Amino acid sequence: MPTLLLDKKKCLRNVERMARKAADKGLSFRPHFKTHQSAEIGSWFRTYGVSSITVSSFRMAAYFVRSGWKDILVAFPFNPHDLARLNALSGSARIAILLDHPATLPFLERLDRPADFYVDIDTGYGRTGLKSEDTEGIENLLKASHSNKKLHFSGFYCHAGHSYKSADPGIKNWIHQKARQDLAKLKKQFSSHDPRALYGDTPNCSIQENFNGIDEITPGNFVFYDLMQHSLGSCAPDDIAVAMACPVTGKYRDPRRMVIHGGAVHFSKESMSKDGQVVFGQVASVDVKNGQAEKGWDPLPDGPFLTGISQEHGIIEKCERIDDRTGIGDLLYILPVHSCLTANLMKEYRTLEGDLIQTINA
Amino acid sequence: MPTLLLDKKKCLRNVERMARKAADKGLSFRPHFKTHQSAEIGSWFRTYGVSSITVSSFRMAAYFVRSGWKDILVAFPFNPHDLARLNALSGSARIAILLDHPATLPFLERLDRPADFYVDIDTGYGRTGLKSEDTEGIENLLKASHSNKKLHFSGFYCHAGHSYKSADPGIKNWIHQKARQDLAKLKKQFSSHDPRALYGDTPNCSIQENFNGIDEITPGNFVFYDLMQHSLGSCAPDDIAVAMACPVTGKYRDPRRMVIHGGAVHFSKESMSKDGQVVFGQVASVDVKNGQAEKGWDPLPDGPFLTGISQEHGIIEKCERIDDRTGIGDLLYILPVHSCLTANLMKEYRTLEGDLIQTINA
Repeated sequence: MPTLLLDKKKCLRNVERMARKAADKGLSFRPHFKTHQSAEIGSWFRTYGVSSITVSSFRMAAYFVRSGWKDILVAFPFNPHDLARLNALSGSARIAILLDHPATLPFLERLDRPADFYVDIDTGYGRTGLKSEDTEGIENLLKASHSNKKLHFSGFYCHAGHSYKSADPGIKNWIHQKARQDLAKLKKQFSSHDPRALYGDTPNCSIQENFNGIDEITPGNFVFYDLMQHSLGSCAPDDIAVAMACPVTGKYRDPRRMVIHGGAVHFSKESMSKDGQVVFGQVASVDVKNGQAEKGWDPLPDGPFLTGISQEHGIIEKCERIDDRTGIGDLLYILPVHSCLTANLMKEYRTLEGDLIQTINA
Repeated sequence: MPTLLLDKKKCLRNVERMARKAADKGLSFRPHFKTHQSAEIGSWFRTYGVSSITVSSFRMAAYFVRSGWKDILVAFPFNPHDLARLNALSGSARIAILLDHPATLPFLERLDRPADFYVDIDTGYGRTGLKSEDTEGIENLLKASHSNKKLHFSGFYCHAGHSYKSADPGIKNWIHQKARQDLAKLKKQFSSHDPRALYGDTPNCSIQENFNGIDEITPGNFVFYDLMQHSLGSCAPDDIAVAMACPVTGKYRDPRRMVIHGGAVHFSKESMSKDGQVVFGQVASVDVKNGQAEKGWDPLPDGPFLTGISQEHGIIEKCERIDDRTGIGDLLYILPVHSCLTANLMKEYRTLEGDLIQTINA
């Protein structure tokens, strides 16, 4: 019964803005499709000249190849168990992979067809990748890859995900400038290979202006944005393009609260801190008439917040502001903390026009 | 590629133990099927005499009616939007609902057929339900329900979910004894209705021995258990019946860590605290040969733990103990923090015998 509403106008505006920014900066635009995971939403990007995409698994790559995408980067250090999937797809599309360790190379000796690879670079996030300072490690990886004539080194890829760890503009600038400069330096050091530099997460691509040294951006979440992105300053409240419609199923006092049908299997358990409290979503609008979705929701009022969550239940404490005008059976429109995980769980979208949009999971 | 492994023997042992405990205590056993969400796993319960079940949504109720279940409690305060679903199902099965507010009653005037209801009772958890002390509120609800001749009051339901908030045996005993005594008292106060008392969450049903005053238990998670339950003392390490098999895709130094394919879209973002660190899972075994799943996994060694998680990536820090014997491409078997949410995301199970088991989501 909880429904994931999609405001297509806001979504298209987000896509258009990012596509235009890439064009203005002379950057190729290879959006990450892990957020929406939808062939139909993916098709909207073509209008803005997008022909190459990023995904985070071979399952997603296969799904988007089926809907006609021909140039796909699987932005996850290559998993040796995916060799058969890579061979199966590489006949129908140009599939690029990430590498960051020579131990992965032996598994690629059974490649059926040529494949591009990017070296995953860690400029400080500390998740995957060779450190940008580790020139020797990068050289060794490239050297080791030479014996495989099907592997072609295309450049460097960096996800500076530590941009999610602070809303402080100074820290964010520092993270971005270091990543950008590190990639620019690597392009020079390895210029004999004419490598490209791929970069991009939604906070940096939304906020930053200087992309010198970068060739291609790969943000994903911007297609919808969410509460987390808003708290990081990546978007305006009105840019958040998805909201959950959840029915109120209970009202309680002492302490005053509402309970909705909408829990961890709908929102995910992603949380953020708001004024010292852990929250899982924010109420944007009350739909007393049920089914006024075509009007959309308020950009972002002052709450209340989804303050507790179990498998199917959501709890909204401190709900005084909406309590009087909200009854059992009314719908609340709630902005999610992390739209990628919410969309993954909900498996489909309902546009404000009432159309149902499927995803890889539907 | 991440796979949810199910050790059927452990699972059946968990079910048998809980069924036997219920029988020994003279309790009816109405297991909650929200954890496994699988018709096949549900069918295993029949061997142990189970004929009535609990679910947490009408979607699940419809799924289990389709696989032949005839007596189902939807343990979620009735959502008015589910009336059509209730009417559709009540022709094929006995569907009971929860109520805790008179404002829900008008929506039930369009009931097609008789339905049982239980009053949801809050003994201190603070999620849903009328407070157990609120005799007047309960009386008002029952009185208001009388005008609907299709509604039949069957008793009280209590989920004392605050049992999840402390591993302290004294606190857990206090929570349980209060819930039990409150329900026993309500049974006496409302004895003219001959109400039943339904109760049960996995921690209390696993640990407690005194169920005087309770008629029926409704635990769910015990079918698999998980790291959270182990940390609460609900189960032995060897009782955890599910583990995620995830390939190692990267090995890194400074700090030393491994990265697996296995993230928030597989494990969920449920976390727990282990020695002051937030963790999302615990490595139980290393499968260097890949596909030695039939051997199962170690009950529970000393870690290492899944210490970070993003959409598709899992990070295992402090992995020294397994680092030397684990390479890229090897599989790690990882115990989840919350098996309900992991199973919901994974959508299917692979038994150690290699059989694929579907769920409502597959």
